[in-house]
Amino acid sequence: MLTTRLTQAFGIEHPVVLAPMDLVSGARLATAVTTAGGLGLIGGGYGDAEWLKRELAAAAGTRVGCGFITWSLARHPEVLDVALEHQPAAVMLSFGDPAPFANRIRAAAVPLLCQVHTLDQARQALDAGADVIVAQGGEAGGHGVGMRSTFTLVPDVANLIANRSPRTLLLGAGGVADGRGLAAALALGADGVLVGTRFWATEEAVVPVRAHTRAVAADGDETIRTNVYDIVRTYDWPAEYNGRVLRNRFIDRWHGREAELTAHLAEAADEFRDAVSQQDFDIANMIVGEGVGLVQEILPAGEVVRRMTQDAADRLGRGTPRTTAISG
Amino acid sequence: MLTTRLTQAFGIEHPVVLAPMDLVSGARLATAVTTAGGLGLIGGGYGDAEWLKRELAAAAGTRVGCGFITWSLARHPEVLDVALEHQPAAVMLSFGDPAPFANRIRAAAVPLLCQVHTLDQARQALDAGADVIVAQGGEAGGHGVGMRSTFTLVPDVANLIANRSPRTLLLGAGGVADGRGLAAALALGADGVLVGTRFWATEEAVVPVRAHTRAVAADGDETIRTNVYDIVRTYDWPAEYNGRVLRNRFIDRWHGREAELTAHLAEAADEFRDAVSQQDFDIANMIVGEGVGLVQEILPAGEVVRRMTQDAADRLGRGTPRTTAISG
Repeated sequence: MLTTRLTQAFGIEHPVVLAPMDLVSGARLATAVTTAGGLGLIGGGYGDAEWLKRELAAAAGTRVGCGFITWSLARHPEVLDVALEHQPAAVMLSFGDPAPFANRIRAAAVPLLCQVHTLDQARQALDAGADVIVAQGGEAGGHGVGMRSTFTLVPDVANLIANRSPRTLLLGAGGVADGRGLAAALALGADGVLVGTRFWATEEAVVPVRAHTRAVAADGDETIRTNVYDIVRTYDWPAEYNGRVLRNRFIDRWHGREAELTAHLAEAADEFRDAVSQQDFDIANMIVGEGVGLVQEILPAGEVVRRMTQDAADRLGRGTPRTTAISG
Repeated sequence: MLTTRLTQAFGIEHPVVLAPMDLVSGARLATAVTTAGGLGLIGGGYGDAEWLKRELAAAAGTRVGCGFITWSLARHPEVLDVALEHQPAAVMLSFGDPAPFANRIRAAAVPLLCQVHTLDQARQALDAGADVIVAQGGEAGGHGVGMRSTFTLVPDVANLIANRSPRTLLLGAGGVADGRGLAAALALGADGVLVGTRFWATEEAVVPVRAHTRAVAADGDETIRTNVYDIVRTYDWPAEYNGRVLRNRFIDRWHGREAELTAHLAEAADEFRDAVSQQDFDIANMIVGEGVGLVQEILPAGEVVRRMTQDAADRLGRGTPRTTAISG
C-alpha cells in the first residue's frame, strides 16, 4: 500500500518500525508488529543479557530486530553477541557513537539502524556506515538531546543523506502516533517511521494497566523533558541527554530542584521504588512522548499498524489534501 | 492547486500565510506574498502606530492583514484601531488572551487568527471565537512557550477543533520552510501554514544582507530558545515565553547566566545596541527557527510560494509517496 525504499529493502509490507523501548518492547509486541506487516524491534535497553536471550528466543520464527542504548552497551559489549547469535532483522543503536560496534554488526550481515537527535549525530552515523538513520525529534518519549524537532530534523537529515549517502534510508521518529504522523513523516522525506508511544499504548506492550489508563486520559500538553528520573534511578546518562515523561506529582516536586533531589537521594529513591512496585504513577515514571495526546484507546498493535497505514495512504493518495481534521 | 478550507474561506490561491514578523514583515513582503497567491500579514509587533500606519498605507490596494503581540497591544489598544481602519484581510493575535480584543475585531467583520503554543491556549482561542487557530510548535523562530512541537500540536488541535468547533480553521506553524513542510502540515490536519523563517529569508524581507548571508550558511542545529535578548532589550515578556534565535557568541556567553547578565545589564545593552547598528550578528540577534537549515538561498517571496506549493502538491498527489529525499 505504502511502498517505500524501506519496505523494499527490508521486505516488509508497511513502513512502520517498532521503537525498541527498554522492557516495554518484548517479544510479544515485536512479533505483533512484524506479523502485522511492520518491523518489530525488541528493546535491549541497558543490556540485560538474560532478558534479551529470553525475548529473542520467544520471538524465534518471527523476523524481529533489537535495539540498544549505546553508552550502556559499551559497558556490556558481550550483549551484542547475544543479539547477533539470533540473526536479528536489524540492530538499532541509540545514544552514543555507533562506530565501535558497526564492524561487528556489518560482519554479521545485519542492517545497522542509528538513532540521531541532531544533524551532528547524523553525520557521525553516516561516518559509521549506518544503513538506516532514525531522525528523532524531542517530542518523542524517553531519552534524547531534545534540541531538535521531528518536523525540521527529518528534512534536514534527508538533505544530508541526499548529499552524502543517497543509499542510506531514513526513518522519522518522535510524535508519530497515527496515520497523520506517518503521512507527514513520508512527506517530510522519510522512508518510514519509528513509533514508540503509540505502540507503548497497545495490548502487547509490557505496561501496567494503570499506566495505560492514565495515558488515555492525558493530553499532549502533559509531558515534559527532565532528568529527575535518571537522578533517582542513579542512571549514568551522559550530560547532553534528558528524557520526556508524563508530568506527575513527583516531577512537579523535583523538576528544577535537581540539586535538592540529589541531596535527598536515598529517601526519594525509596519512594520511587515503592511507587514502581505499587504502580503509583503519581510518583513512578511513565515514559511517553507528546503523541500521548493522540492516544485515545489501547488497541492491539496490529490494529495500530492497520489504521495508521490505511489513513496515511489515504492522505497521500489524493489529488488534494483532506481539509477536515480527522480524529486519530 | 492545493485547495483547502483556508483557500476557500479567504479566496486565496495557496494555503500559505506570511507570519507577521515584527518589523521584518513590512508592506513589501506582505504584498509580495499576497500577490503570489498567499496571504500577507504585516508585523504590527509591539505596537508602533506610526510604523503600522505607514506600512498599511504602502500596502493599500493589495489585500493584507496584520498581527500583534497581544500583551503589548493591551498597553496600546488604540493601535488595533489603526489596523481596523484599513479593513485588513485578517488580524492575528499572539502571546496572550485574545478575548479583550475579539469583539472589536468581530464587529469590524475582520477574521480573527489566534496563534497558540499549547492545547490549553487553543481552548482559550476557541472560547474567544477565533476564526483561525495557528498552532505553532517550538521549532519556530521568535517567541513562544516552547513546550510543544508542530508535529504533535497540529493533530492535537485538529482533534480539539473537530470536537468543539468544526468550522474553525487551522494553520500549522513552526518549521514550515519548503514544500515538504507544507505537505506535512496538511497531512497532519492543518488547512494551511503560517511561514516565518522561509519568508524572513526573502528579498522583500526587512533583514540586513549580513543576516541573510549568515542564515544561508547556518544549519538547523544552530538555533536555541533563550530569553537573553529579552533581558538585554528590557522587553517585558511574560515568564512563560522565550524565543528561538540563531546561536552566536553573545548567546554562548550569556545563556544559562541570566542573573549575571541582569547584573551587567547597562554594559551588555550598550554592546547589543552597538552591534545592531553595526550589523554584527555575533552579538546582535537573528530571529530564525530550526527551519533555517532548510534555507539554502535568498529568493523572491513569490518564488518561495511557487516552489513550496508546487512541491507540496506533488507530494500529496501521488498514490505512493516519493521515496527519495529531495533537497529543499
